[in-house]
Amino acid sequence: AGAAAVLERAELRERTATANSMARLLRPKVVAVVGASREQGSVGSRIFQHILENNFTGTVYPVNNQAVSVHGVRAYPGVGQLPEPPDLVVVAVPAEGVVPVAEEAVRAGAKGLIVVASGFAETGEAGAALQGRLVDVARANGARLVGPNCLGLLNTDPAISLNASLAAAMPPAGRIGFFSHSAALGIVILQYAGERGLGFSTFVSAGNRADVSGTDVLEYWEEDPATDIAMLYLEAFGNPRRFGRVARRVSGRKPVLCVKGARSRAGSTAAGAHIGAAPVGDVEVDALFHQAGVIRVDTLEELFDAALLLAHQPLPGGNRVAILSNSGGVVTITADACDGYGLHVSTAGLVDLGPQAGAEDYRAAVQRALEDPRIDAVIAIFLCVGECDPELVSRGIRRGVVGAERSTGVAKPVLLSMMGATGVVKFAFEGKGALAGRTTAFPSYRFPEAAARALAHAVAYADYRREPPGRLVWYEDTDPARARAVIEAAVKEVPPGGGPHRLTPEQAGEILDCFGVHVASRPPRQNGGAPLDLSVRQHHVFGPVVVLGRAGQPAVVRITPLTDQDVRGMLKEVEVPPEGGEVELLCRLSQLIEELPWLAELEAAFVAAADGAPAALGADLVVAVTRPA
Amino acid sequence: AGAAAVLERAELRERTATANSMARLLRPKVVAVVGASREQGSVGSRIFQHILENNFTGTVYPVNNQAVSVHGVRAYPGVGQLPEPPDLVVVAVPAEGVVPVAEEAVRAGAKGLIVVASGFAETGEAGAALQGRLVDVARANGARLVGPNCLGLLNTDPAISLNASLAAAMPPAGRIGFFSHSAALGIVILQYAGERGLGFSTFVSAGNRADVSGTDVLEYWEEDPATDIAMLYLEAFGNPRRFGRVARRVSGRKPVLCVKGARSRAGSTAAGAHIGAAPVGDVEVDALFHQAGVIRVDTLEELFDAALLLAHQPLPGGNRVAILSNSGGVVTITADACDGYGLHVSTAGLVDLGPQAGAEDYRAAVQRALEDPRIDAVIAIFLCVGECDPELVSRGIRRGVVGAERSTGVAKPVLLSMMGATGVVKFAFEGKGALAGRTTAFPSYRFPEAAARALAHAVAYADYRREPPGRLVWYEDTDPARARAVIEAAVKEVPPGGGPHRLTPEQAGEILDCFGVHVASRPPRQNGGAPLDLSVRQHHVFGPVVVLGRAGQPAVVRITPLTDQDVRGMLKEVEVPPEGGEVELLCRLSQLIEELPWLAELEAAFVAAADGAPAALGADLVVAVTRPA
Repeated sequence: AGAAAVLERAELRERTATANSMARLLRPKVVAVVGASREQGSVGSRIFQHILENNFTGTVYPVNNQAVSVHGVRAYPGVGQLPEPPDLVVVAVPAEGVVPVAEEAVRAGAKGLIVVASGFAETGEAGAALQGRLVDVARANGARLVGPNCLGLLNTDPAISLNASLAAAMPPAGRIGFFSHSAALGIVILQYAGERGLGFSTFVSAGNRADVSGTDVLEYWEEDPATDIAMLYLEAFGNPRRFGRVARRVSGRKPVLCVKGARSRAGSTAAGAHIGAAPVGDVEVDALFHQAGVIRVDTLEELFDAALLLAHQPLPGGNRVAILSNSGGVVTITADACDGYGLHVSTAGLVDLGPQAGAEDYRAAVQRALEDPRIDAVIAIFLCVGECDPELVSRGIRRGVVGAERSTGVAKPVLLSMMGATGVVKFAFEGKGALAGRTTAFPSYRFPEAAARALAHAVAYADYRREPPGRLVWYEDTDPARARAVIEAAVKEVPPGGGPHRLTPEQAGEILDCFGVHVASRPPRQNGGAPLDLSVRQHHVFGPVVVLGRAGQPAVVRITPLTDQDVRGMLKEVEVPPEGGEVELLCRLSQLIEELPWLAELEAAFVAAADGAPAALGADLVVAVTRPA
Repeated sequence: AGAAAVLERAELRERTATANSMARLLRPKVVAVVGASREQGSVGSRIFQHILENNFTGTVYPVNNQAVSVHGVRAYPGVGQLPEPPDLVVVAVPAEGVVPVAEEAVRAGAKGLIVVASGFAETGEAGAALQGRLVDVARANGARLVGPNCLGLLNTDPAISLNASLAAAMPPAGRIGFFSHSAALGIVILQYAGERGLGFSTFVSAGNRADVSGTDVLEYWEEDPATDIAMLYLEAFGNPRRFGRVARRVSGRKPVLCVKGARSRAGSTAAGAHIGAAPVGDVEVDALFHQAGVIRVDTLEELFDAALLLAHQPLPGGNRVAILSNSGGVVTITADACDGYGLHVSTAGLVDLGPQAGAEDYRAAVQRALEDPRIDAVIAIFLCVGECDPELVSRGIRRGVVGAERSTGVAKPVLLSMMGATGVVKFAFEGKGALAGRTTAFPSYRFPEAAARALAHAVAYADYRREPPGRLVWYEDTDPARARAVIEAAVKEVPPGGGPHRLTPEQAGEILDCFGVHVASRPPRQNGGAPLDLSVRQHHVFGPVVVLGRAGQPAVVRITPLTDQDVRGMLKEVEVPPEGGEVELLCRLSQLIEELPWLAELEAAFVAAADGAPAALGADLVVAVTRPA
């Protein structure tokens, strides 16, 4: 408990510090653009213009030693000559000129820097060195740096209204925060999302992520009242353990949607070439996202489809869906899709309203389905054949939703597919009576299959949210100091940084004993099924990874540290009842891994509790340690 | 050879008869619409109007005993009173009135009937009986029937220009034939496809498929010069063996794209409710499509994406793709998607043109990639960030394509993603020099992932097309009469229609011997790996299904009859070299299955040839036969 409390306090401090530093970047009062020239097309000129055009509520200064004014605004020859200290400086000069400008900016008091130029770590060693110098300048002065090799940032909050980016049009204001590694992709996503009716609170294009990373931005959104949904396009992780910790916290309150690019070998090669980052294993990314409650989507389209639902509808209470349509064929393909995505469709949930169905039929059917306690969500599809009025039908659906919410007091998600229309179907808010703002917009999908997929993501996320939050269990009856002494004695002769050194069974047993992990004296007996194997391996990016599984079957992979919920989930997946001794064994093992960073490898049979004997590791275990260089 | 020739002649006769009867439906000169009333909204009135509005090149008569004229055209009280015999009669009266009208129509000489009303087999037994009577009327008079419970048909051929359907707008003319079980869905698909730049030759909405089925329409398209691509939305199979035979033939010349609805249990329940058809197993559908070269797509969006590519680009020579973009992030996600869909992306195929890339950069890169003999297809993606002209870039890409085709004489498929634009990017034909019409339109996808998926379908289809066509091998050194005598003797005491009767090993051996199938005298020895098991089972819809596999591994499933290519493919999948004795064994077994319809079940080990002994079935085999009721 003591150690856990210390960790929690440290986390809170870190979170507050990050959020404050990010707020200075995203909510500045005074902005300077260095490199804003009179030339129309230049990067600096465009960013300066975007800030002006989008009615920034603070003050923006162009910095240019060749011109008296830029776009009609008085220019200053250097950041040092500005009439007031800037909060944020946009450095829009070529790579070789960036460091001196950054130095001048932080001297002038800037706490935020945006560096647009490419020519840094993505180009090779010399660029990486230059990027290192840039980061040093920022960190030595407590400033945060976005980029280099990025397109800037946006904040649609009317109190700020800042478009310090190369995106020509400010996206519609809304409740989604969006972070993108890829610069160009980020801008195009903003554009398309706007067309589909998604509104944004903030957008950060982080490019090389020399300083500000997705995790920093996530930590800012955690407490940002303007952001309800976090959307990330990631290609690599700087610090996956920190990402996991933060994402777990955030996703307990707000959905975190993530496209992880560079999944494949080919994709990684491409990413390596343009961001200079090492690819990571996809299994580990899956584990990380799963443990942190992050909604992983495979494609951009899927990202929008899911965001549209989460932004406009409540979370479903379960996976039982009703499908309503005026076409039996559409009910069929939608049922196929729902089934394929793991949703439950009962016969009662298949509602073919017939080709003549109109607004009132939809109203009645939607209301009936939503009032049914065995239904958690409704997908309503309308095909317009010949003469018809989709808007009339939408309004009928809405009346059904309002009616059901009034009679039951429960809000359930409703997804539309007007077969042709995509985006959101919006309604003017109709005064008193309508339960909530949410009934004023329904996500609509061109094809019902996309609706089914989006709903499946929302169901999985809602499941995660219903589970009690995972806790890191910290046992006090342990003796990490003695365990460390055993390891140090064992590796005395091993040169620092050498390959893993394998401990004797006695040494291994003693270490485990320090953490209350039993080693079986009897041969491992299993209650049916093949024996369970447990292993811990060091991953070069993710750190210690725990793998539990039976020979010949897919194993469950998890990143440490493991919460009690992680452990229960692992046991469930390998069909061991997630109770008592087995949970404790794995939680203690996770604590051991945290406390003994020299542990390089562990391999053992996993022996469930039986006949009064506690859960234990098999007797013929392998434990290896590495002495850090 | 003799038997095979007889079969081929029978097939040719059937094909010609079907195509002729379908042509009378789809290319009529005189059409009558019964139930065309003066009332605007009625079904008959709408179809009559659609025929008029779309400039039918023949003559259409409204039939109505309440009105002198309908929409200004002279009406007749009955089909019998028309001034000339109709080719096609649209029966737009309620279900209970349909049979008398159909009788009158065929008496008047109609060779085609479209029945729009619902209230037939999809509603239960009484409806099924009514449908049976309707079919009898048509068949007894050599007329073909579309429906009931359907939305009609369309033919965009300028020589016909017939919209005898409830689709308000005629889709753009084009090279795609489209058949849909689901009526409403069909119409909506036409609408959306038109928006995406897909043009159609013919469309048939077949509803309950009481007579005209997808297979009939496919057989018509086979020789139809106006149709290059067949697109089917199916929910059930009437006669899967005939479908397989026809589809195999057609797909050797034209791509056949198919969405098979009612995949899942839930989907089948929905389909059962609205078309009254029995669901079938998805594994068998996969086998059927695989053997017939049918491109199976899971969703409607995927259907369009693939059709767009096949309609506008040549087939790829292989699976090696180059990815070009002005965004490294986009290259990454596209590479991920390509990899996920089984395309090959080499490092040389990843081309990040950088954010400044313009039309000329795209031209050069596209040309270079297409000229590279190690590249089979190009996906070119352009992100418009800030000021840019996507059209300029498209034209650059086109110049690169034309350049590469001129220098190499080889046409390779090129897919665009202009990130935002969806549909086709069209160019005016630029006179002499441009190699082919195909370079005047490129399919464009909103997201590059969709392009990757479409390309993967084209690659798989091109692979199928490159294989030699499968042949049904028919051995003459067989004695089916003796085999039948053995079975008849064995089941003498069994009541007709009783459960399967198991043969003695001697009887089984004798039957197999009649077809030259060896039974191993030695115990089955395998050249490494687990032993192979072979089984034949009767499927209630697909007939005999052959399953070959190793215990604990996914088995390969095929529908009989098996061609030599089917057999080679099966052996490859279970990692047996597809040569010599093993191929012959399975081909002989397929012939046995065809010749002995009483065979209910066969189960045996599959013994590869070794040590001079031929390929054989294991000695302890099970053969059971059923005496038909």
